[in-house]
Amino acid sequence: MKSRAAIAWEAGKPLEITEIDVEDPREGEVMVRLVATSVCHTDAYTLSGADPEGLFPSVLGHEGAGVVEAVGAGVTSVAPGDHVIPLYTAECGKCKFCLSGKTNLCQAVRATQGQGVMPDGSSRFSLNGRSLHHYMGCSTFSEYTVLPEVSLAKVSREAPMDKICLLGCGVTTGIGAVFNTAKVERGATVAVFGLGAIGLAVIQGAQMAGASRIIAIDINTDKFDMARQFGATDFVNPNDYNDPIQQVIIDQTDGGVDYSFECIGNVNVMRSALECCHKGWGESIIIGVAGAGEEISTRPVQLVTGRVWKGSAFGGVKGRSELPDYVDRYMKGEIMIDEFVTHDMPFERINEAFELLHAGKSIRTVLHY
Amino acid sequence: MKSRAAIAWEAGKPLEITEIDVEDPREGEVMVRLVATSVCHTDAYTLSGADPEGLFPSVLGHEGAGVVEAVGAGVTSVAPGDHVIPLYTAECGKCKFCLSGKTNLCQAVRATQGQGVMPDGSSRFSLNGRSLHHYMGCSTFSEYTVLPEVSLAKVSREAPMDKICLLGCGVTTGIGAVFNTAKVERGATVAVFGLGAIGLAVIQGAQMAGASRIIAIDINTDKFDMARQFGATDFVNPNDYNDPIQQVIIDQTDGGVDYSFECIGNVNVMRSALECCHKGWGESIIIGVAGAGEEISTRPVQLVTGRVWKGSAFGGVKGRSELPDYVDRYMKGEIMIDEFVTHDMPFERINEAFELLHAGKSIRTVLHY
Repeated sequence: MKSRAAIAWEAGKPLEITEIDVEDPREGEVMVRLVATSVCHTDAYTLSGADPEGLFPSVLGHEGAGVVEAVGAGVTSVAPGDHVIPLYTAECGKCKFCLSGKTNLCQAVRATQGQGVMPDGSSRFSLNGRSLHHYMGCSTFSEYTVLPEVSLAKVSREAPMDKICLLGCGVTTGIGAVFNTAKVERGATVAVFGLGAIGLAVIQGAQMAGASRIIAIDINTDKFDMARQFGATDFVNPNDYNDPIQQVIIDQTDGGVDYSFECIGNVNVMRSALECCHKGWGESIIIGVAGAGEEISTRPVQLVTGRVWKGSAFGGVKGRSELPDYVDRYMKGEIMIDEFVTHDMPFERINEAFELLHAGKSIRTVLHY
Repeated sequence: MKSRAAIAWEAGKPLEITEIDVEDPREGEVMVRLVATSVCHTDAYTLSGADPEGLFPSVLGHEGAGVVEAVGAGVTSVAPGDHVIPLYTAECGKCKFCLSGKTNLCQAVRATQGQGVMPDGSSRFSLNGRSLHHYMGCSTFSEYTVLPEVSLAKVSREAPMDKICLLGCGVTTGIGAVFNTAKVERGATVAVFGLGAIGLAVIQGAQMAGASRIIAIDINTDKFDMARQFGATDFVNPNDYNDPIQQVIIDQTDGGVDYSFECIGNVNVMRSALECCHKGWGESIIIGVAGAGEEISTRPVQLVTGRVWKGSAFGGVKGRSELPDYVDRYMKGEIMIDEFVTHDMPFERINEAFELLHAGKSIRTVLHY
C-alpha cells in the first residue's frame, strides 16, 4: 500500500513529505487510514534530537483519528470501517499492569514500541526498500499506518475525526490527570504550571471537578485568555514577582494549593509545583516530560510534612476502556475540544504546524489528510 | 517545683544530670510527672548539633509516659492522676489542619514549639534563674515537665508506663506510616530500609496489614533476628551486592515492591527506596529525618511512570484521638512493644543510653525515673 507520509530523517531537520510503502497488517495487527492528526510537543521533542530514545528515520505522530482499513489474522475487537483513535499506551487487559487495577501503563507492547517496531520486531514502513521506524506505536504522520490491535480505541462513528484526534493525547492527558491521578475534589484549589494543550486540559478537568480556584501560571501571558475560557480563575506570570513562584502561590492561597500540575517538562518548575502545595495534604502531579538525564529535587521535609509527589502518563486513562466515553462526552458537550484547535491545515503543511508550536502561537494545529 | 533533669548545655556534649526548677502550669497547660522515657535518634540528632533548629541549653526528650501532676486554668480534658503520653504533634481539633481530615500535623502550638517555648512565648524550665528551652513540646528528660493540654493523650491507667512510652514516637510512627500514610493492603510487598525502632515498627505494621513479603534491609546484619521477630520475611544487606540496592530489590520482586519505607534519614537511601518501587503503582514513604539542607532527587520519569513519593510524620497519627486505642491494643496483645526494649536503666544513666544508640547496640533503652 502506498501512503502519503512525513518522514523524520534526522534530528533537527524538517520532515519530508513523500510517499512510502506500508505493509499489510500481520496477525494481531490493524491497518488504519488516518483522517486527521495533530502535532504535540512530544513529536517536536523527538524531532529535535533531545529525546535519548528517539530513532531515525521514522514516521512520527501519535495524536490522530482514523478508520480501520484492514485487519490481520486473529483481530476481533475492530473491523474495517470502524472509527478508531490510536493509543500510545496500549491496553491488553491481560498483563500484570492491566490486571492490577492501579495503573494504565500496559506493558504488552512496550518493549518493541520503544524500539520503533511492531511486536514481532519488524517495521511495516519502508521507502525504496529502506525500513523506517514506527513511533510511540502510532505513527500518525502517515495516512496509512499499522498498529497492534491492543493499541486502538474504537469510538463513535458520529464524532468528527478532526476534533477527537486530540483525545489521542493532550486533552485526555490533562483531564485524566485531574480525575484519575490527583482525584481533585469539589472546592479544591489547583495550580497549573504551563498553559499549552495539556495545561489547558488540566484547567478544564479542574473546572469539571468543581475546583474553587484554578490558578493558571505561564510566562506567556497571551495564553491567559484561553485559560480563562477553560475555567481558570487566577492568572500569574512568574516574571511579575521577585519571590520564587512557589512563595507567590503560597501567599495567594493561605498556605498553598491542594493540587498542582506541572505541564511543561522543566525540572525547576516541577520543584516549584511541589513546594507550592499546602503542607499536610497538597499533591503535585508531574505531566511534562523533562530533558534526558535531568533530575528533580527537593528537601525531604517537603514530603515528611505531608506533600505528595506523583506523575501521570496519558492521564492514567486506559484507552480502550475509557476513550469511547470521552468521545461520547465530547458529543454531549461535556468535554470541550474544539477550543484547543487554533489552526487547521492540509497534511502537507505539517512543518508549518511544528513552527507554530515552537513559536507558542498555536495550541493545536490539526492536519487533514 | 524542683525536678531531676538532664540538661543539654551545648552540641556534642553529654547531658548533665541536675536538679532544675519547673514552674507551675499556666492557662491551658498541664504539669506531668514522667515515669519513663526513652531516647530516640531525634534526640541524638539535636544533641549532635546537626539539627539546624536545635536550641541550647535545653531539656530534650520526646518519648515518654507519665501522670498528670497539676493542671492550669481552663484545662478540662485531663485531671491530676490521669495517665498521659506527651505528644510532639499536638491535636487541637480546631485548626485548619485538624479540621481538614487529611493530616495529623496540627499547627496550634507549632510555631512556639519550634522556638523551644510554651505557646505564651516563655519557658517553664530554669536553673539558677537561667531559662532552659523546651524541646519538641515535650522535654521528657525532666521528671516534671509542662505541656500544652493539646499535647497530651490520655491513656489507660492499666498500661505499664515503661512500655507505652514508646508509643510517644517510634512504635506509633512506624505502624501509623503503614496504615495511615501508605495504607498497605493485604498481600502487598514491602521493603523497609533501616532496622532501628522505626523500621522494626514498620515491619510490625506491615505484618499486621497482611503484607505477603516484608524485605528488611540494613548493613548491620545483627538487626535481622529482631526484624524476623516482628515479621520480616526477607533480609538484604546492601554490602552483599554489587548492583545498586534498588536493582537488587527489583530483581528479587519481579519488578519492585508495592510499598517502601525509608527509616534512616539518608537522602541516597530515600532515592533507592523510591526507585525500588514497582512501576505503575509503587509508593515510597520517607520517615527518616535527613541532615540540614540535604536534598532528595530522582529522574521525573520515576514518578511519571506511576511511582508515588510521600512522607510521614508521627505515622499520620492524631495523638489524642488515636493513641488511647494504640495503648488498648497493646494491652490486648495486638501490638508488640516489649520487644523494642533492649535495655532498662535508671534515669541517671541517660548518657549511656545515647552511647548504646550510637553504637547500634540498642533498639530502645527505657529510662526509669
